[in-house]
Amino acid sequence: MEYLSKSVNKLINELMKLPTIGPKTAQRLAFYLLKAPQKDNESLANVLIEVKKNVRECSRCFNLTEEDICFICNNSQRDHTQICVAATPQDVSALERTREYKGIYHVLGGTISPLEGIGPDQLKIKELLDRLDSRKDIKEVILALSPNLTGEATGLYLSKLIGPKQIKVTRLALGLPLGADLEYADEVTLSRALDGRQTV
Amino acid sequence: MEYLSKSVNKLINELMKLPTIGPKTAQRLAFYLLKAPQKDNESLANVLIEVKKNVRECSRCFNLTEEDICFICNNSQRDHTQICVAATPQDVSALERTREYKGIYHVLGGTISPLEGIGPDQLKIKELLDRLDSRKDIKEVILALSPNLTGEATGLYLSKLIGPKQIKVTRLALGLPLGADLEYADEVTLSRALDGRQTV
Repeated sequence: MEYLSKSVNKLINELMKLPTIGPKTAQRLAFYLLKAPQKDNESLANVLIEVKKNVRECSRCFNLTEEDICFICNNSQRDHTQICVAATPQDVSALERTREYKGIYHVLGGTISPLEGIGPDQLKIKELLDRLDSRKDIKEVILALSPNLTGEATGLYLSKLIGPKQIKVTRLALGLPLGADLEYADEVTLSRALDGRQTV
Repeated sequence: MEYLSKSVNKLINELMKLPTIGPKTAQRLAFYLLKAPQKDNESLANVLIEVKKNVRECSRCFNLTEEDICFICNNSQRDHTQICVAATPQDVSALERTREYKGIYHVLGGTISPLEGIGPDQLKIKELLDRLDSRKDIKEVILALSPNLTGEATGLYLSKLIGPKQIKVTRLALGLPLGADLEYADEVTLSRALDGRQTV
């Protein structure tokens, strides 16, 4: 886009490196930023620089935090006998949005995916097993992994490792999502929903 | 989103101020930026701070530039007897992408829109008329305004002002866009396409 000024092009190129931002959105954002007050742009710039410096992994559950221990692990109101295993901090944030879960978490940092070169050693699986061994009061491990190929494989792997420890291992229910149309549901989801049917 | 760390929330809030970025995209971008190399984030931050300092309006055509006069006005290869009137620098960039137009531009900075409180005085209309008066060799003014309510009104207003100056005033052709389905074209577009039919 040699017909735009050099600085604008540079901004557009930087914005296009971000996920979900294509050339058109990048251009739209760039022109918006050109018109925005300088102090708004500066405050966005500052958090961009600061965010990686401030945020680190909780040394217990590997969720994101600004302290050594995250506020969920630090919260004595939560049920520390229940550990929910999630793949990423994004997944923790989705689970927290439900305001349903009162236990604590363990973030794996991904799922086992040989195609992407991610084996059990790249994930916080050893740390999870150490946590389960070091605390004798843990009653339940909830595997909250996405029901796709790598999520299922990781869940299976973990349940085999945790099984011998006499800890209850559960997983998220499979079934129809709210608002779904039964007619268009895929066979696997529907048969899982049938298997998991509940008395009214 | 009190379940995310403070810095991440701050980044998400800053990103959500941008157009087309909702809460979900903002969260996705924030987690991407957390994983991205610090130097990438810093270079984005730097252009954010710099862009408004470097970029200004061309003192002749009001397109964006980093010099006093933009590179289109400065280009002697271009036809300086043809002025294309566009509403915004974005529109100039769209027109330049066609690689068709070889003349110069005049950017109005918007269109006349009484509902938004934008009258002729807020636009660079006086500057356009001054340009036309000061240079006697201008042969054609092309009104490249979007064919919507405010664009049409602005075009009409300009053509009345320029008409008496003995300069040819043209506008972009109205018709079917490439790839359109005649069956679904609206009546106005189709009747304009009929009016403007060309011999094959």
